[in-house]
This record gives sequence, structure tokens and C-alpha cells, in this order.
Amino acid sequence: MAYFENVNHIKFEGHKSTNPLAFKYYNPEEIVAGKSMEEILRFGVAYWHTFTMDGSDPFGNGNMIRSWDKFTGMDLAKARVEAAFEFFEKLNVPFFCFHDIDIAPEGDNLKETNQNLDEIVTMIKEYMKTSKTKLLWNTANMFSHPRFVHGAATAVNADVFAYSAAKVKKGLEIAKELGAENYVFWGGREGYETLLNTDMKLEQDNLGRFFHMAIDYAKEIGFTGQFLIEPKPKEPTKHQYDFDVATGLAFLQNYNLQDYFKFNIEANHATLAGHTFEHELRVARINGMLGSVDANQGDPLLGWDTDEFPTDLYSTTLAMYEILQNGGLGRGGLNFDAKVRRGSFEQEDLFHAHIAGMDSFAIGLKVAQKLLDDKVLENFIEERYSSYSYGIGKDIVEGNTDFHKLEEYALQLDEIKNTSGRTERLKSIVNQYLLTVLSE
Amino acid sequence: MAYFENVNHIKFEGHKSTNPLAFKYYNPEEIVAGKSMEEILRFGVAYWHTFTMDGSDPFGNGNMIRSWDKFTGMDLAKARVEAAFEFFEKLNVPFFCFHDIDIAPEGDNLKETNQNLDEIVTMIKEYMKTSKTKLLWNTANMFSHPRFVHGAATAVNADVFAYSAAKVKKGLEIAKELGAENYVFWGGREGYETLLNTDMKLEQDNLGRFFHMAIDYAKEIGFTGQFLIEPKPKEPTKHQYDFDVATGLAFLQNYNLQDYFKFNIEANHATLAGHTFEHELRVARINGMLGSVDANQGDPLLGWDTDEFPTDLYSTTLAMYEILQNGGLGRGGLNFDAKVRRGSFEQEDLFHAHIAGMDSFAIGLKVAQKLLDDKVLENFIEERYSSYSYGIGKDIVEGNTDFHKLEEYALQLDEIKNTSGRTERLKSIVNQYLLTVLSE
Amino acid sequence: MAYFENVNHIKFEGHKSTNPLAFKYYNPEEIVAGKSMEEILRFGVAYWHTFTMDGSDPFGNGNMIRSWDKFTGMDLAKARVEAAFEFFEKLNVPFFCFHDIDIAPEGDNLKETNQNLDEIVTMIKEYMKTSKTKLLWNTANMFSHPRFVHGAATAVNADVFAYSAAKVKKGLEIAKELGAENYVFWGGREGYETLLNTDMKLEQDNLGRFFHMAIDYAKEIGFTGQFLIEPKPKEPTKHQYDFDVATGLAFLQNYNLQDYFKFNIEANHATLAGHTFEHELRVARINGMLGSVDANQGDPLLGWDTDEFPTDLYSTTLAMYEILQNGGLGRGGLNFDAKVRRGSFEQEDLFHAHIAGMDSFAIGLKVAQKLLDDKVLENFIEERYSSYSYGIGKDIVEGNTDFHKLEEYALQLDEIKNTSGRTERLKSIVNQYLLTVLSE
Amino acid sequence: MAYFENVNHIKFEGHKSTNPLAFKYYNPEEIVAGKSMEEILRFGVAYWHTFTMDGSDPFGNGNMIRSWDKFTGMDLAKARVEAAFEFFEKLNVPFFCFHDIDIAPEGDNLKETNQNLDEIVTMIKEYMKTSKTKLLWNTANMFSHPRFVHGAATAVNADVFAYSAAKVKKGLEIAKELGAENYVFWGGREGYETLLNTDMKLEQDNLGRFFHMAIDYAKEIGFTGQFLIEPKPKEPTKHQYDFDVATGLAFLQNYNLQDYFKFNIEANHATLAGHTFEHELRVARINGMLGSVDANQGDPLLGWDTDEFPTDLYSTTLAMYEILQNGGLGRGGLNFDAKVRRGSFEQEDLFHAHIAGMDSFAIGLKVAQKLLDDKVLENFIEERYSSYSYGIGKDIVEGNTDFHKLEEYALQLDEIKNTSGRTERLKSIVNQYLLTVLSE
Repeated sequence: MAYFENVNHIKFEGHKSTNPLAFKYYNPEEIVAGKSMEEILRFGVAYWHTFTMDGSDPFGNGNMIRSWDKFTGMDLAKARVEAAFEFFEKLNVPFFCFHDIDIAPEGDNLKETNQNLDEIVTMIKEYMKTSKTKLLWNTANMFSHPRFVHGAATAVNADVFAYSAAKVKKGLEIAKELGAENYVFWGGREGYETLLNTDMKLEQDNLGRFFHMAIDYAKEIGFTGQFLIEPKPKEPTKHQYDFDVATGLAFLQNYNLQDYFKFNIEANHATLAGHTFEHELRVARINGMLGSVDANQGDPLLGWDTDEFPTDLYSTTLAMYEILQNGGLGRGGLNFDAKVRRGSFEQEDLFHAHIAGMDSFAIGLKVAQKLLDDKVLENFIEERYSSYSYGIGKDIVEGNTDFHKLEEYALQLDEIKNTSGRTERLKSIVNQYLLTVLSE
Repeated sequence: MAYFENVNHIKFEGHKSTNPLAFKYYNPEEIVAGKSMEEILRFGVAYWHTFTMDGSDPFGNGNMIRSWDKFTGMDLAKARVEAAFEFFEKLNVPFFCFHDIDIAPEGDNLKETNQNLDEIVTMIKEYMKTSKTKLLWNTANMFSHPRFVHGAATAVNADVFAYSAAKVKKGLEIAKELGAENYVFWGGREGYETLLNTDMKLEQDNLGRFFHMAIDYAKEIGFTGQFLIEPKPKEPTKHQYDFDVATGLAFLQNYNLQDYFKFNIEANHATLAGHTFEHELRVARINGMLGSVDANQGDPLLGWDTDEFPTDLYSTTLAMYEILQNGGLGRGGLNFDAKVRRGSFEQEDLFHAHIAGMDSFAIGLKVAQKLLDDKVLENFIEERYSSYSYGIGKDIVEGNTDFHKLEEYALQLDEIKNTSGRTERLKSIVNQYLLTVLSE
Repeated sequence: MAYFENVNHIKFEGHKSTNPLAFKYYNPEEIVAGKSMEEILRFGVAYWHTFTMDGSDPFGNGNMIRSWDKFTGMDLAKARVEAAFEFFEKLNVPFFCFHDIDIAPEGDNLKETNQNLDEIVTMIKEYMKTSKTKLLWNTANMFSHPRFVHGAATAVNADVFAYSAAKVKKGLEIAKELGAENYVFWGGREGYETLLNTDMKLEQDNLGRFFHMAIDYAKEIGFTGQFLIEPKPKEPTKHQYDFDVATGLAFLQNYNLQDYFKFNIEANHATLAGHTFEHELRVARINGMLGSVDANQGDPLLGWDTDEFPTDLYSTTLAMYEILQNGGLGRGGLNFDAKVRRGSFEQEDLFHAHIAGMDSFAIGLKVAQKLLDDKVLENFIEERYSSYSYGIGKDIVEGNTDFHKLEEYALQLDEIKNTSGRTERLKSIVNQYLLTVLSE
Repeated sequence: MAYFENVNHIKFEGHKSTNPLAFKYYNPEEIVAGKSMEEILRFGVAYWHTFTMDGSDPFGNGNMIRSWDKFTGMDLAKARVEAAFEFFEKLNVPFFCFHDIDIAPEGDNLKETNQNLDEIVTMIKEYMKTSKTKLLWNTANMFSHPRFVHGAATAVNADVFAYSAAKVKKGLEIAKELGAENYVFWGGREGYETLLNTDMKLEQDNLGRFFHMAIDYAKEIGFTGQFLIEPKPKEPTKHQYDFDVATGLAFLQNYNLQDYFKFNIEANHATLAGHTFEHELRVARINGMLGSVDANQGDPLLGWDTDEFPTDLYSTTLAMYEILQNGGLGRGGLNFDAKVRRGSFEQEDLFHAHIAGMDSFAIGLKVAQKLLDDKVLENFIEERYSSYSYGIGKDIVEGNTDFHKLEEYALQLDEIKNTSGRTERLKSIVNQYLLTVLSE
């Protein structure tokens, strides 16, 4: 283990520490509302952004300095596994996630690709025996290779559909083999460039068929992890079918798939769709579909997926507020689908960035739990909707009324009295909780 | 009839006419694919933008010059009816649409408000006897009055829910009375300002209950028009529950309402949600939910609902392409939910703007029909997806395969051969059709 | 003084206070880096949002409950003055700002309008004798009245130009009379709806002429306050000439006006233009043009000017960081060009909102000052650019080189060594400073 | 010449042609207002998008099928030159453009890189002897290589500044050698990722110094082409210093550079900055700074630089309207800085796309010229601003008035009479011109 020579195990040292390579707020063993931070937050490292991403962007070549980049081919793949488990241990992180092509290079044909995968999966499995770090989820990359140019399960070409099925079949086998908690579908090319050449109905029907076959195969092999759909509105495709949680929900309902899937919600995908992160979490939560989280953040002034490490404490607080109200994430976790900026190209930045993200969610957890403990928002909301607990409101909620009765009631009403929603006051309270969380 | 003294009946004069107050392209009697333009396009005038909108914006006072503004109160309401039917006749338009408060002022209480409505509805009914112009749809304005500050059917206050029910009850009665083809729900305040004070689940449950009561009441009184939901993502509310068609569909399915509703799709609402107009039409169409259209356009560089009159011929062409493939709009129509710019404050601009919109859709219709006649896009698409008509593709579509068979197939594939999607070529073809539509 | 009966003077009670009507962080007398918070922050109340704004939006009628709304006409104007000074005193705020039509209703003609203004100005001047609250700036509203539909100083109509000149003349006289620290120009209608009907060159030339006449008149009457231009990219106009600071700077340079103006920078206008608030402050600062601030915030997911009270502590911290590096705001201040949400319609919300904003800037000030005291970013930046302090870098900065010498130098370079920009680490540090600011 | 075997010379065949590889509207010899289309439009092919772009995007590997990709290294570079001149000839295009690294691979050091360049430049020069195609502009790519991660002329590292100077020195020499009409600066990394680590003032000062050295060197070697700055607001950098034309203008004025530069305006960069294409052209035009055009289009619903081939006829018409009013582009041209969609990966698509773009600008030219011939907009505008041609308006424009006289004038005004801006009518007229352009 020599890929991160200059970094020792990252420990919690408290917010007064000036050690840049220490957790200031994330203390895995600290108990918050009956569970340890580690159990609640279930952090995961994204293999792609941390071990394969090279810093390239549409206008620039790869520039990341990585100690394993002296290798190539399968040697590189193996070096990355070694580096990954060294990284997981030093960061003390309980989970990781990967796409198939992150861990092993594609071969000249599917058979070779699968052999490459088998070899690396065996190696990973061996490492997992002595590592605390488990597989949060894996997935198949069905968007990078040219064959997926017109989609994968929604491809215009049946060969590509078949190839995609084979990829997911293998992915489910790997998930089973490595004990993955979930299996994720993100459809980067499942959408369209222009409606002028697109049969949207056939494409969506095929996607529905694909998912049913995946469910059947998972049952067959006894993979019991949770299936997750990850919505994203656009990029790389001009318009993607899994635009946001609501769109995903409509799709799942249309194809009788809603009982088999939950959502993997990414903060930056939410904002690209015109929603806040917490909105998407809320919509999933109240529909019983909140599965897992891709923890990152976007730049609200940029129109693409920046996948920044999450440092905005408002965002982490409101996210944790939804997650805590969901009773946690179950089999899901907080996967850092986040990449260091191109300018942060040194290996050490990988630690700085993960520490930044983990500390930010630790603070978010503590602020959110304190808000819940004090029932600050709950009490306000209960009072705000109290008119539905008696009289005509109770009748409405319990289904004991109709337009006749309601009109009769309305006709005798004087001017209706509303009360302030107190948005500014509530935002002030959230600030107050944020600023004092350390003093408790 | 003297509100538009300087304008005569607007006639079709052909594109060489230099008369600014003539249709250049819209010829109501011209037959396109077996029907008259008037029958296909089913244009409607929006009462609010044409007869009550005063030009005010968040930074400016009303500035529209309107010959009926010398009146006030019920006299103004009556003058507007007179002006409206004069306008309909001069424009030769088959439909109109209104909110309750567009046609009659609110009284001191609900009873008075309803009396005002009754008086004007009677007057309108009388006018309709001798007018060709019919009611495309009506709706209840449940967003302007302060009582709706926190929503209507999703209000935090049960009294407001009751009041809203009474408004819709009256609306359905008016729809029945005037023979409306549809009844529309647009939830301008059905959403939230901040999640900090919002019980999203209760609000959506209440909205579901509200719609079921509306359905029941419509049945009771024998109103057989189509119910329409009009999606909009935001504005005035920060986030609205009917974000877009897909979100609306998920909601309707959640509450077993999908058989009772279709969508009223507005171009500008589509773009505010991050979609093209034609995308929203397509999503509704392939789900059998395309009901009607609010024909306008937004400014892609502005982030609010500009409600411009539709003049972009690409937009009208692609919209008509979806509508024609839908077999027309059925009971729906093309309602100009569009307002003249603040700078177009003269009464004559109302005619210029409607002519611009009607001519633009007439061209869109002709270009779209010609594209369909020549099967330009259809043939391309048929060829593009042809691999699903035989072999493995046929098995996929017919449900005769599974991950085992697909993997077996994929393993023996050589490099997969895709073909170009030809986006640039297809766009060129659309241009060619647009430029030559007049020469046919 | 009885307009805010239920509110006493707002005092600083510290962050442990649970009194919703107390400052938790803003302590006017607290010394930060040698000055009192009150002196540094120079808060101002915006007359329009606090005393005349009625809560209306493009889809809703006014709904604000205001104790002075029982009056009308000049009585209302006077009641507002009374309410305003009661509010200033209870909030203990050192400045206020207004447009001419905020304080007095327009008359039937300009003469009457000016008489109304004179009467109210006299009243305000009287109040100011015993009040600590001074006039940060005033301005002329040249966008609300229909006459300004096509612009004011850039109007297509010379009569409107003349009328606008008369308005600004009066405005400058009032500024002189009330001892305004600044005079502001915001050109809400100085732009265009469509280029199809616009002579941009003539309009901008006229705007340049207008400003020179304003400068001349200010000199003539001895008004020595700072002239400020407030950039905004759009809304109400589709495109405004003062798009952002850089655009304003180009305009001022074009017309030899740069020595007479600084900028009044509004956070929400910055984000509408695609910039962060701190970017606009920085651009103004390094050009010596940072004059004053309209302290608010926008919603990054909404495309219009929401003018929210500033509560985002990142935004207030980074703003104060620029302001402190500017050596403060000089004659400028932090004017709350911010309005309570429509849902916050109770009078008490005006206090909650201002407290939220003042507390947020107080925290921002403290965090920014601590960052500066510790030279956290300064040291990082000094090191980062250190290669410009010696050798070839020094030659570059001092102008002692050319392309020949630089090429010669470059030709002998080995691979160039860059170092990480450490974005993630720096964001972590800002979080750490924010979270610990209270513990110092 | 065998890189495009299946494509013959592209000829003008008229709009009734069904040959997909023919111009329908672009006829290089057709005379429009006294000049040939070829002379007015001055089309250029972008070397990077057509000969080196491989179709990769942030989520996908290269997928373009290119007949020259069987080569590598300098052989590939030479094959591309051969392919390029075959392409230019078959497309019959008068200009091309390139970045240094488009034409020759970088060597192990600057010396080798320059040798590679020399070899290819010699080859290109040889080809140019017998080709009609000339060099519109060249530029130095100072954004792709890792050394430019923190900028080039604004780099935090003086070595990078020096290296950049050497690159531009070489670029100017190549420009001189090949007779380039212009030399372009696009600063993809000249901006910042975060203000937390940025000395904006020093960076901009250095950029100013860099440009002065470039001017000096061009003079020294006798390069007389026009210097062009290409504004872009963001991407790849979070915020770029040359945000838009106005920002560029402010910068140039700040550093006394305005006499040496014009702007190269890209449509998609305009929209990313919140402007229409025609707005940026207008701003440059009225400031005498319209130099050249990067002819493409963006997707208004996507937030990144899509660089689509221009097919929107509104955009090409309004662009040509500005260009014609500018008296043409002088030494500039219409460079297709546009790439085929990833889905259009066949070589033939390169022709389809260029034909689409050239035909679209040919139509735009004809519509714009017809609008000008008929003085449709000119007459409307002249009338609209006519009040500035006499009386008080004339005094304003001629500088013969002041606030005293204007107030006196305003005091005697009755209600001011404005007239409609007729936006809807004008848009209708543009449609009418577009639809009838072929019939003239």
C-alpha cells in the first residue's frame, strides 16, 4: 500500500484542529439520535471520480496526477483496486460504488470484457474480506462506448439492446457476488437528441421490458439488493427519459414497475432539472421511493453537471432533514458522486475533497437532528395545517364531504383569515441552528 | 358594436397582401387533409389577456388603451362581453376561454360573486345564440385573491379548500350552462414557497380529494366536457405540483385520476420546465393524454412566463406535427394564452397579435401536413428502428426473450454497427419544407 | 407612533435568545476591526418594499396587511412617513432609501407631483431632525408610469426624455435638501423589447447626454453625493443597457463618465446576469467603482428578481469580504432592496425579515473579518502568484520583457510545474470559519 | 484525394432539388446587392470540429468515423491536411480556421512542437497555392494542455505566461506566413474557478500586458491582420474574463487596447451569456468593433456550448441584418465553429451539416437584404424616433439643452402621447419575408 504515501489514516480531531487532513466534524463513532454517524450517513466513495477520472473536460486533456497512472491495461485496473482499498481504509469509509468499466477495461469483445471483470471482481472480493468497506452499489456503464450513441435499453438498434442486457446481467451477477446493497440504473443515453428522428413510445416500452427482464434475472440468481433509478434531466443526452423523480415515478407506474424500484437521487441532477436537492428527496420520500443519494452539488450559475463535492451546509442540512424523516436510507447511502475540480489535480485533493464532503454532511446531520429534536419546523407545520384536524377540515381529510356541503359552508364564511407562512423567520431559525450546532 | 371601430372583419387575403389587418396564411375554409383549417386549428381567444389584461408588470402600472375602460364594475364587465363578441366576430374565431373573475367582478361575498357571474353568464349565453364562437373551456381563478396566498385545493387552511370547492362547483355549472368543451385546472398557487413550512403529502392528498369531488359533481350535473390539467413548473409559486406533463401523470396515477383528465399544454410552461413545447405534446400524446393547447411562446433568455403570441414557425410546425399525429385535438383547441407586449398597448395590436398567431399556426399546419404527406420523418424513423421488426429485435418487442438469450446473442456479436441519426440533415429538410410551403 | 404597536425596540440579545424580535448577531455597538458594526454595515431600509409594496405579483392582487392602508392619497403618504420613522427607530437602522413616487403620489401633472413631493420632503426633513436615520440615497422612478413604456432617458419620444430630466432634476434637489449620501440611477426601462424596432446607438447616446446634464446640474446646486448606477440585465425590459458592472463600465468609459459614477450592486441582479454577488463586487472593487450595495438574494432556480431578504451566510460572508477589502463602502451602505414573501403578509414579518438580513450580514462581517485577520486566503493567494515576484514573472509585471525574451525563456523550460488550486480545501476552511465564528 | 470518396463537388441545385448533397439556397455566384454570395458570406470551415473532433463528450468516448484515423502522429496531421483541402474543394468554401494544435501534434517540448508546426505549415502553404481556400484566422490553443489548468496569459504561474507568449509568437508568425486575415484570442481558461484563490486584478493586468506585447510583435513582423477577441462567459472556466462584447469592450478600454482589436462573435457564446446572437452583433457594430463571426447555434434549453450547425433561419436572418448594416464583415467571415452531433458520426454528416449551415445563412442573407431593400424596419424606426429630429428632441441630440430647459418644457406638457412599438406586427412581417423570399 503505497499509493497515498503522504497521507495517514484520517481521524476525527474536532473543529479546532488545524490539521488539514483530519475530520473536523465527522466522527464515525459519535452517536446521533441512537445511531453512530457512520451507520446513519453510510458514506460511499465513487470509484470513477476518485480512481479513473483524469480531469479532462470538453476543452482540456486529462491533468490529474495519480500514482497508479504508470500502469496500463489490466495492471492499471489492479493498481486501482489496491489504491482504492488503501484510500477506503485511510478515509475510513464504509462503502464504495462502481460502474463495470471503472474497475476493468473492456476487451475486444464481450467475452473478454467479462473475463477482465471476473479477474478484478475476484481481486476486489479478496480485498473485501479484510476491509470494512462494502459495496453500496454497482452499475453498468452504458453510455461511454460508441455502441451506445443512440441509447442502450432504448437504443434504436436491437443489437445494442441485447448487448445492454448482457451488461446488466453481468452487473447483477457481480452485485450478487460482492454483496452489493443496491443496483443502480442511470440512463445517460436513454433519451433523445431530437424528436425528429425518435420513436419515444417504442423506446420507453423497450425500457420497461428491459427493467422487467432485469427483475426476473435478479430473482433467478437470488440478488436481493434494491434496484435504483437515478434521474437526470439532460447531459449527455439533450433530453433524458428519467428527467426527475416525478417523471421516473410516472414511468414506473406506467410499466407496473413501482414496487421494484426506488430512486437514487443526485443533488446536481436535481438542480439541473429545476428542483432543489431537498425537493427531490421529499418527492421520493412521500412516495416511499427514497432509496439512496448521490451526494454532490452543482453550481447554480452553470448549466452542466459539475459534480462538485458537497460543502454547502444548507444543502446538507436540508438533505439530512429529509433523510432523517425517512427513517434513514435503509440499504442506501451517501455516495460521493463528486469529482475534484480540474484545478485540484494533486492526489492530496482527493482527501481534502472527501473530508470536505463528509464533514459537511456530519454538520448537516447534527443540525437536522437538532431541528427535529426541538420540533421547530414540525410544530410550526402542525399548527399551520391544524384546520384539517377538526370541523370541515376533518371532513375533507376523512372523505366525508362533497361540493354541495363545501359550497354551503363557503357561502356562510366571512372573510377568510390566513396567517403568515413566516419564510424569513424560519430561514433565520435554520441559520441560528447552524451557527450554534457546535456549542451544544 | 363599436369597441373596435377602425377594424373590419379580418379576411384571408393571401401572403402577397400588404393589408396589415388581413390573414396572410390562415384561411378558415381551406381544406388540409380533409378538414377545414378552422376545424383543425380550433382557435380560441383568451378573455383575460385580451379583455382584462392592463399591461401592468412587476415594475409598471397598467398602460393598455382599451375603449371599454371608461366603464367600471358590472358595467365594465358587460362592456367587455360586448367588446369580446365584436372581437370574436371580426377575428372570425371559433372559440373563447375565461376564468370566472375575468367575466364578472367579485362581490363582497361568495353569494354576490355568484350573482354577478350569473348575470354575465346569462348575457354571454344570449350572445352565443347568434355567434359562431363557442366556449372552449372555462376555469376558476384560484390564485389572484389574497385568500389563495397559501394555495386553493392545497391550501393550508380548510376554509380556503371549501371556498375553492364552491368556486369550482360554480365553474362546472357555468361550463354546463354555456356548453363548454372542456374544464381546466391550473394550480398557480398549488405548490410551495419553501419546504420549511410545507406538508407536501397532505397538500397533494387534498388535491387528489378535490379532483375526485369535482369528477363526482360533473357527473351529477351531467357536464360531459373533458377535464384538463395545465402543468406549469413555477411562477407565481416557487414550485408548483403540476410541474410538467410527466409530473402531472404521476400525480394522476397516484390518485387514480388518470382516466378522467387530459392535459392542457402551454408552450411557455413547457420551456419554463426545461422542455420544448413539442416534447410536452409528445409525452402527452403517447400517453393518450393530449387534450388541448395554450398557444403562445416564451423567450428562451427570460426566466418568466412571457406569454408571447406564437410567431416562431418552427414551434408551430412541430406542435402541429404532434397534433396531427394525435388525430387532432378532439374537444380541445388552440387557445391563445398570449398577451400583447407592454409596448403594444394600442387596441389595434390585439388584432395584429392574433393575426400573427393564427397565421403562424396556419403555416405550421401546412408544413406539418406536408411532412406527413411525404412521410419524410416517418420513413426515416421506420428505417431507423427496423431492427425491432425481425429476429432478436422482434423477440424483444414481443416479449419472447430474457437476459439469458440476450446475453447469448450479444456474446456472438461482432462490433455493433450503428448508423447516423442525421440530425443536421433532418433540420435542413424541415427548413426546406418551411420555405417551400407556399409554392405548393 | 402607533403603526407597529406590538413591536418594541429591537435589541441585540445574543444568539441564545429565543425572542423572535431580537437581534441575535447584529450588535450595532460591537467593534469589529476598529469600527462599530453600525458604522461598517450602514444598513438602509428600502421605502418601497417596506412601506408601499402590497404583495401583488403577476398572478395575484395585493395582500399585505398594513396598518397605514386605511388612508389614501396624501394622507397615506404622510402616514407612511410616520410609520417609516417609527420603523427606523424600532429597528435602530441608520439609513433609508426611496424613489420619488414611493414617498408622494403623482399629481395630475408634473407641477402637482412636485408640490406633493415638496410637502412630503418637508415632513421627512422635519422627522430627520430628531431621528438618527439618514438618507442613503434617493432616486426617480422612471419605469412604472405608462409614459415610460419605451424608456426614460432612452425613450423613443423626446417628450419623455424631457420629462425624465425634470424628474431627475427634482430628485437631485431633494437629495440636496435631505442630505442624501448618494443618488442612484436604475434604468428599468432603459433597454429594449426587440431589436426590430430599436435604435440602440441613439438610445445610448441619449443616455450619455442625460448623465452629463445630471452631473452639470448636481454641480450647479452643490449636491456632492456620489452618483451610482445600478446594473440589472433584464426585467422588466427584455434587455437592459446596464446589464452588469462590466457593461456599465464600458458604457461609462464610452461617454467619458467613469469619473462621476460608481456602482450600486444588487445581489439578485448579479445572479440574473449570470454572476455571483461577490463577482460583481470584485469587478467593481478592482476598478475603484464599488459604491453601494442593494442587499438581497435571489432564488437560483427562479428566473426573475425575487428580491428576497438576504439570509444565505455564504453570500453575506463573501460580500463582506469584498467590502472589507474595499476599505468599506465609503458613502454607500447596505440597503435592503428586499421584500417579504407574499406569504409573509403580516406586519410583524417586516421586522422578522430585516432582523434576518441584519443578523446575516453581521455574521458575514465577523466571518470575513476573521478570515482577513488570519490572512487565510491572502497567504494562499500570495503564495499562489509568487512567481510574479521574481525572475521572469517580475519582468512581466514590470513591463521589462517581450515576446522574444519570453519565447527564449519558454524554449528552455522543462515540463511546467503547477500546483493545486485547492478549491475544496478552501471551501472547507470557509465552513470552519463560519461554524466557529461564535466561539471566538 | 480519397478521403471523401463518395462525395462529389457540392453544387447549387436550387430548392427543388432532392439531392441531399447539393446546396439548395447557397449559390456562391448569385449577386445580392452588388456582391456575390461568396464575397458577402465569406464562409470558413473550422479545422478542429471537422478534422480533429472525435465525438467524445463528458460521458462518452470518441465515436466519429473518419477515414484519416488509420494514421497517427505526424502522418495523421498530414492526412488531415490532405483531407481538409479535399473537403474545402468539394464544399467550395473560401476560408478555413485553425488552432495550432489542430494542425500538428505537440512534441516533447516547445522546440519540437514548433518543428511539427513548421512542417505542417509548409505543407498547408503548398496546398494553398493551388486552392482557392484562404486562412480566415488562426489561433493558439491555450486551454487543452494541463499546463494551462490555471490560465494562460492570466496564469497564476509566470512560466505559463511565458509559454503562452511563445505560443502566440509562433501563431503570429504562422498567420503572417499563411496570409491570415485575422488572428483570434479566445481565453477558455482566462478566468477563475473560485474567487477564494484568485487575484483578479493581477490576472487582468497581465492579460493587458500580454495583448500589448502581441501587438508589438505583430507590428515587428509586419502582420497586418485584424486582432480579434472572442467573448465567452463560462465553460470550461466557471467565469471567463471575456464574458461578452460589453465586458470585452470595458477590458480593452481599461488597457488602452480598443484601437487594436475587434470581436469575433459566436452565436452560442452569446446565448450562454444571456444575450441573443443579434444583440452581441449589434453591440459590437455600434461600437465599430464587429470583426468576425463564429457561426453556430446553441440549444436554449441546454446550459453548455453545444456548437450546433446553424439552421435557425430567424437567427441567420437577424445576424445577416446586422452584418449587412455593418457594411459586411471586412476581413472577417462566417466561420462554422460548429460540430456535428455525436449521433451524426458518419463522414457524410460533415457535408450535410455544412450544407445546412451555408444554406441557412444564404437564406438569412436574402431575407435580410430584402428587408433592407424595402426599408421595412428602417422606416418604422425612423418614424419611431422622429421626435429627435426637431424641437426639443433636436436640442437634446445636438447638446443644446440642460435640465433647466428640459424641466421648463416638461412642466408645460400635457399627457405624453406614446405610440405602439408593434412587436407582434414586426415579427409577422419578418415571417412574411422569410416565407416569400424564394418567390422573388
